[in-house]
Amino acid sequence: MIAAHLKPPYYAVIFTALLTDNIEGYIETAERMEELAKEQEGYLGIESARNDVGITVSYWEDLNAITRWKNQVEHTEARERGRKQWYQQYQLRICKVEREYGFVKQ
Amino acid sequence: MIAAHLKPPYYAVIFTALLTDNIEGYIETAERMEELAKEQEGYLGIESARNDVGITVSYWEDLNAITRWKNQVEHTEARERGRKQWYQQYQLRICKVEREYGFVKQ
Repeated sequence: MIAAHLKPPYYAVIFTALLTDNIEGYIETAERMEELAKEQEGYLGIESARNDVGITVSYWEDLNAITRWKNQVEHTEARERGRKQWYQQYQLRICKVEREYGFVKQ
Repeated sequence: MIAAHLKPPYYAVIFTALLTDNIEGYIETAERMEELAKEQEGYLGIESARNDVGITVSYWEDLNAITRWKNQVEHTEARERGRKQWYQQYQLRICKVEREYGFVKQ
Protein backbone atom coordinates (compact mmCIF):
# COMPACT_ATOMS: atom_id res chain seq x y z
CA MET A 1 0.00 0.00 0.00
CA ILE A 2 1.08 3.55 -0.75
CA ALA A 3 0.34 6.13 1.93
CA ALA A 4 -0.94 9.00 -0.21
CA HIS A 5 -2.75 12.28 0.49
CA LEU A 6 -0.71 13.29 3.53
CA LYS A 7 -0.10 17.01 4.03
CA PRO A 8 3.41 18.24 4.88
CA PRO A 9 4.85 19.07 7.26
CA TYR A 10 4.73 15.75 9.10
CA TYR A 11 7.31 13.13 10.07
CA ALA A 12 8.64 9.91 8.56
CA VAL A 13 10.58 7.12 10.26
CA ILE A 14 12.67 5.23 7.69
CA PHE A 15 13.66 1.81 9.08
CA THR A 16 16.03 -0.24 6.92
CA ALA A 17 17.09 -3.70 8.10
CA LEU A 18 19.03 -6.83 7.21
CA LEU A 19 17.82 -9.99 8.95
CA THR A 20 19.82 -12.84 10.47
CA ASP A 21 19.09 -16.47 9.49
CA ASN A 22 17.03 -16.91 12.67
CA ILE A 23 13.70 -15.29 11.80
CA GLU A 24 11.43 -17.55 13.87
CA GLY A 25 8.56 -15.35 15.07
CA TYR A 26 9.61 -12.38 12.95
CA ILE A 27 6.74 -12.25 10.43
CA GLU A 28 4.05 -12.56 13.13
CA THR A 29 5.68 -9.84 15.22
CA ALA A 30 6.16 -7.51 12.24
CA GLU A 31 2.46 -7.89 11.35
CA ARG A 32 1.43 -7.32 14.97
CA MET A 33 3.62 -4.19 15.18
CA GLU A 34 2.04 -2.81 12.01
CA GLU A 35 -1.45 -3.35 13.47
CA LEU A 36 -0.38 -1.80 16.78
CA ALA A 37 1.20 1.24 15.05
CA LYS A 38 -2.12 1.92 13.31
CA GLU A 39 -3.83 2.22 16.72
CA GLN A 40 -1.42 4.90 17.99
CA GLU A 41 -2.37 8.56 18.29
CA GLY A 42 -0.66 10.60 15.58
CA TYR A 43 -0.18 7.64 13.22
CA LEU A 44 -0.63 8.65 9.55
CA GLY A 45 0.43 5.67 7.45
CA ILE A 46 2.93 2.92 6.72
CA GLU A 47 4.71 1.55 3.64
CA SER A 48 6.79 -1.60 3.61
CA ALA A 49 8.79 -3.71 1.13
CA ARG A 50 11.40 -6.44 1.40
CA ASN A 51 14.04 -8.11 -0.80
CA ASP A 52 17.45 -8.81 0.69
CA VAL A 53 16.97 -5.56 2.58
CA GLY A 54 13.68 -4.61 4.24
CA ILE A 55 12.43 -1.02 4.24
CA THR A 56 9.53 0.16 6.39
CA VAL A 57 8.53 3.81 6.34
CA SER A 58 5.98 4.93 8.92
CA TYR A 59 4.42 8.39 8.94
CA TRP A 60 3.50 10.42 12.02
CA GLU A 61 1.93 13.78 12.82
CA ASP A 62 4.82 14.99 14.96
CA LEU A 63 7.90 13.98 16.97
CA ASN A 64 5.82 13.38 20.10
CA ALA A 65 3.86 10.65 18.32
CA ILE A 66 7.16 8.99 17.31
CA THR A 67 8.46 9.14 20.89
CA ARG A 68 5.24 7.64 22.27
CA TRP A 69 5.43 4.82 19.72
CA LYS A 70 9.09 4.21 20.58
CA ASN A 71 8.16 3.90 24.26
CA GLN A 72 5.04 1.76 23.77
CA VAL A 73 5.65 -1.35 25.90
CA GLU A 74 4.87 -4.14 23.43
CA HIS A 75 6.84 -2.30 20.73
CA THR A 76 9.83 -1.93 23.08
CA GLU A 77 9.78 -5.66 23.82
CA ALA A 78 9.60 -6.51 20.11
CA ARG A 79 12.55 -4.20 19.39
CA GLU A 80 14.64 -5.88 22.10
CA ARG A 81 13.86 -9.32 20.69
CA GLY A 82 14.76 -7.94 17.26
CA ARG A 83 18.21 -6.89 18.39
CA LYS A 84 18.81 -10.24 20.10
CA GLN A 85 17.47 -12.49 17.35
CA TRP A 86 16.24 -11.08 14.03
CA TYR A 87 18.39 -8.12 13.03
CA GLN A 88 21.87 -8.41 11.59
CA GLN A 89 21.94 -4.66 11.02
CA TYR A 90 19.50 -1.79 10.90
CA GLN A 91 19.41 1.96 10.42
CA LEU A 92 16.57 4.14 11.66
CA ARG A 93 16.11 7.69 10.42
CA ILE A 94 13.73 10.35 11.72
CA CYS A 95 12.81 12.85 9.03
CA LYS A 96 10.61 15.88 8.56
CA VAL A 97 8.62 15.57 5.33
CA GLU A 98 8.72 19.00 3.72
CA ARG A 99 7.16 18.40 0.28
CA GLU A 100 5.42 15.65 -1.58
CA TYR A 101 4.12 14.84 -5.05
CA GLY A 102 1.74 12.13 -6.14
CA PHE A 103 0.88 10.49 -9.46
CA VAL A 104 -2.04 8.23 -10.31
CA LYS A 105 -2.43 6.88 -13.86
CA GLN A 106 -5.66 8.07 -15.50
CA MET B 1 22.37 -2.42 0.91
CA ILE B 2 21.86 -0.22 3.92
CA ALA B 3 23.16 3.34 3.67
CA ALA B 4 24.75 3.74 7.10
CA HIS B 5 27.08 6.29 8.69
CA LEU B 6 25.44 9.40 7.27
CA LYS B 7 25.46 12.51 9.47
CA PRO B 8 22.26 14.53 9.87
CA PRO B 9 21.12 16.98 8.77
CA TYR B 10 20.82 15.80 5.17
CA TYR B 11 17.92 14.98 2.84
CA ALA B 12 16.01 11.86 1.86
CA VAL B 13 13.75 11.31 -1.14
CA ILE B 14 11.23 8.55 -0.40
CA PHE B 15 9.81 7.19 -3.66
CA THR B 16 7.00 4.63 -3.32
CA ALA B 17 5.47 3.11 -6.46
CA LEU B 18 3.00 0.57 -7.81
CA LEU B 19 3.78 -0.72 -11.30
CA THR B 20 1.47 -1.43 -14.22
CA ASP B 21 1.53 -4.83 -15.99
CA ASN B 22 3.69 -3.32 -18.75
CA ILE B 23 7.17 -3.29 -17.23
CA GLU B 24 9.19 -3.88 -20.42
CA GLY B 25 12.45 -1.95 -19.99
CA TYR B 26 11.75 -1.07 -16.36
CA ILE B 27 14.45 -3.13 -14.61
CA GLU B 28 17.21 -1.97 -16.95
CA THR B 29 16.18 1.66 -16.56
CA ALA B 30 15.89 1.40 -12.76
CA GLU B 31 19.41 -0.06 -12.58
CA ARG B 32 20.75 2.62 -14.93
CA MET B 33 19.10 5.38 -12.82
CA GLU B 34 20.68 3.97 -9.67
CA GLU B 35 24.12 4.00 -11.33
CA LEU B 36 23.53 7.53 -12.64
CA ALA B 37 22.35 8.80 -9.22
CA LYS B 38 25.62 7.60 -7.70
CA GLU B 39 27.57 9.83 -10.08
CA GLN B 40 25.72 13.00 -9.07
CA GLU B 41 27.25 15.70 -6.87
CA GLY B 42 25.71 15.61 -3.40
CA TYR B 43 24.62 11.95 -3.63
CA LEU B 44 25.00 10.14 -0.29
CA GLY B 45 23.36 6.74 -0.71
CA ILE B 46 20.39 4.68 -1.86
CA GLU B 47 18.21 1.89 -0.41
CA SER B 48 15.66 -0.07 -2.40
CA ALA B 49 13.21 -2.94 -1.87
CA ARG B 50 10.22 -4.28 -3.77
CA ASN B 51 7.22 -6.56 -3.11
CA ASP B 52 3.83 -5.53 -4.46
CA VAL B 53 4.94 -1.98 -3.68
CA GLY B 54 8.44 -0.70 -4.45
CA ILE B 55 10.25 1.68 -2.10
CA THR B 56 13.43 3.52 -3.07
CA VAL B 57 14.99 5.96 -0.63
CA SER B 58 17.85 8.09 -1.92
CA TYR B 59 19.94 10.36 0.30
CA TRP B 60 21.37 13.75 -0.65
CA GLU B 61 23.50 16.46 0.93
CA ASP B 62 20.98 19.25 0.37
CA LEU B 63 17.91 20.36 -1.60
CA ASN B 64 20.07 21.70 -4.43
CA ALA B 65 21.45 18.23 -5.09
CA ILE B 66 17.86 16.88 -5.27
CA THR B 67 16.84 19.62 -7.72
CA ARG B 68 19.86 18.94 -9.95
CA TRP B 69 19.06 15.22 -9.96
CA LYS B 70 15.41 15.94 -10.77
CA ASN B 71 16.51 18.05 -13.77
CA GLN B 72 19.21 15.69 -15.04
CA VAL B 73 18.24 14.99 -18.67
CA GLU B 74 18.40 11.18 -18.77
CA HIS B 75 16.58 11.00 -15.42
CA THR B 76 13.85 13.34 -16.71
CA GLU B 77 13.35 11.14 -19.79
CA ALA B 78 13.15 8.00 -17.65
CA ARG B 79 10.58 9.64 -15.37
CA GLU B 80 8.42 10.60 -18.36
CA ARG B 81 8.55 7.05 -19.71
CA GLY B 82 7.67 5.87 -16.20
CA ARG B 83 4.50 7.96 -16.10
CA LYS B 84 3.50 6.78 -19.59
CA GLN B 85 4.27 3.09 -19.17
CA TRP B 86 5.49 1.66 -15.86
CA TYR B 87 3.80 3.46 -12.99
CA GLN B 88 0.23 2.84 -11.91
CA GLN B 89 0.72 5.16 -8.95
CA TYR B 90 3.59 6.76 -7.09
CA GLN B 91 4.24 9.11 -4.20
CA LEU B 92 7.47 11.07 -3.82
CA ARG B 93 8.41 12.72 -0.54
CA ILE B 94 11.26 15.12 0.15
CA CYS B 95 12.39 14.96 3.77
CA LYS B 96 15.01 16.46 6.03
CA VAL B 97 16.72 13.74 8.06
CA GLU B 98 17.05 15.13 11.56
CA ARG B 99 18.29 12.14 13.58
CA GLU B 100 19.45 8.61 13.00
CA TYR B 101 20.39 5.49 14.92
CA GLY B 102 22.22 2.41 13.73
CA PHE B 103 22.61 -1.14 15.02
CA VAL B 104 25.07 -3.82 13.91
CA LYS B 105 25.02 -7.25 15.58
CA GLN B 106 28.30 -8.01 17.38
